[in-house]
Amino acid sequence: MKIAIVGCGALGSYYGAKLCRSGVDVSFLLRTDYDVVLKNGVQIHSPEGDFHVHPRAANCPGVIGPVDLVVIGLKTTANHQFPALIPPLLHSGTVVLTLQNGLGNEECLARFVPPENILGGLCFVCLNRIQPGVIHHIDHGRVVIGEYRRPAGERTQAMAELFRRAAIPCELTDDLARAHWEKLTWNIPFNGLGVASYAGWAAVHSGSVTSGRPPSPCLTTDRLLADPAWHGLVRELIGEVVQAARALGHALEDGIAETQIQRTLTMGAYKPSTLIDFERGQELELEAVFFEPLRQARNAGVSTPRLENLTRVLQQLKR
Amino acid sequence: MKIAIVGCGALGSYYGAKLCRSGVDVSFLLRTDYDVVLKNGVQIHSPEGDFHVHPRAANCPGVIGPVDLVVIGLKTTANHQFPALIPPLLHSGTVVLTLQNGLGNEECLARFVPPENILGGLCFVCLNRIQPGVIHHIDHGRVVIGEYRRPAGERTQAMAELFRRAAIPCELTDDLARAHWEKLTWNIPFNGLGVASYAGWAAVHSGSVTSGRPPSPCLTTDRLLADPAWHGLVRELIGEVVQAARALGHALEDGIAETQIQRTLTMGAYKPSTLIDFERGQELELEAVFFEPLRQARNAGVSTPRLENLTRVLQQLKR
Repeated sequence: MKIAIVGCGALGSYYGAKLCRSGVDVSFLLRTDYDVVLKNGVQIHSPEGDFHVHPRAANCPGVIGPVDLVVIGLKTTANHQFPALIPPLLHSGTVVLTLQNGLGNEECLARFVPPENILGGLCFVCLNRIQPGVIHHIDHGRVVIGEYRRPAGERTQAMAELFRRAAIPCELTDDLARAHWEKLTWNIPFNGLGVASYAGWAAVHSGSVTSGRPPSPCLTTDRLLADPAWHGLVRELIGEVVQAARALGHALEDGIAETQIQRTLTMGAYKPSTLIDFERGQELELEAVFFEPLRQARNAGVSTPRLENLTRVLQQLKR
Repeated sequence: MKIAIVGCGALGSYYGAKLCRSGVDVSFLLRTDYDVVLKNGVQIHSPEGDFHVHPRAANCPGVIGPVDLVVIGLKTTANHQFPALIPPLLHSGTVVLTLQNGLGNEECLARFVPPENILGGLCFVCLNRIQPGVIHHIDHGRVVIGEYRRPAGERTQAMAELFRRAAIPCELTDDLARAHWEKLTWNIPFNGLGVASYAGWAAVHSGSVTSGRPPSPCLTTDRLLADPAWHGLVRELIGEVVQAARALGHALEDGIAETQIQRTLTMGAYKPSTLIDFERGQELELEAVFFEPLRQARNAGVSTPRLENLTRVLQQLKR
């Protein structure tokens, strides 16, 4: 079995390295880290044990050619690169698994991949790329895999087995869309408000909010929850996401707000990915994590005033 | 000696009550609290000992008539009421002492009070009006008194004696304008940033920032200093205020930033007056504490980009 990893930041590199270690034929498709990974391979630092692998490295998909499985770890802000990156990796039966955040990624792939060959995976993992080819695995690592617009089947089971053999805890979902919305009940409040908490400081510091980023007064998850006012917004946003999801037919559980908050309280001063992107001056995953969910909520006729406001604030900060 | 207290919020009531207790003939000019104070007098709760006084109470300056000393404790947002409130209290030798925050108050009085009869006082005190006629004295209480555009003289000494006999720690300054700028090195960063820290939350909560105030995520002084990013802005703002003051001829000390920050660190989770006004939905003292200092800095040709931004943010929050 041949696997191509597309998007070898922290996420793609971590799961790709685990697959590689398990003995599968893995090729990394790289851009900025190509030279380093070609020469030195990939180093994972993890509380579960450090390890090093030397996968095939390519800086162009044509060099890799058709594979059996494409795993996508790209930031969703790079989805416009799909048409250039993905087709050279496909044969008629290639399965494409996107591990990306938010909504719309499978739909984006479905423009040139047969829908029945698309899977989505939700990653519950804390990672940090500390330098080219070197990934710091902080905690967790579980993946939940589902079929695009279909329940899980034998193929999904086989995929989960592949991941488990690579020491990646893996579960299946029969409802990928619902799983995405469940994850959004965390990503929207904690990624979104973490960045929005920066607005006042940024306005005083620079008048606009595009320059002079470090040091950042973005609120980590613990601080958002410790402040009654921000905590209130977290709960309101979760409530809006749940309402939207339900109007779209995804039966999220009643206690999900409490579950997410209790889980987050155990995470300490955690910095969600959007905060890290923001502090680094990188483009934010606004389309997949905020705009598309908001669009779907609107289409379902659900009023989500806090999400509307949050999206507007993030849009302004992005400028 | 007859004294009129104009503006009987926490500040005017506290110092007025102390003067009253010392045996001086004190009249409170009141509006909202008139009925209560007329009936029950004024109650001070203080770690230095509670006390109760029953000053004369009036709801119109004409009832009080000319006095020897007018003490002004009004919020500077009410300075437009001076022409109605002050003249009925004046005889040719009436001394007017403003205890108000910021710049421009003495100038405002000088339109209808002879400049040589104007004094300014800076109050270093933590107070809270907890209900009509009831003031909570939290800490401190020192007053620094100076003559408007003149050094301290015999009259200033006499005024300080009057205050000291009323158990009000009182010092003199020969340079009232410099003392105002010194105080601004605290008021501008801590009052201003405390309110500005609200901007991100407010934008998500309501889209605008005029509604839905409680609970407030405004940063108290300890939290501003604990966060490296906000702490950095505190220091930058102090630096700008010092630069402006010096360009205007006020020789502020080199170590003033450090002095202010060390002093503030001992104050705990202190909520400056502008934060309290803001949380209560009251008008902010922007003109005296922010706009007029910014105007004077500009006129002196000093660039104060952080103060410019801060003023703009506060202006937007005010709307």
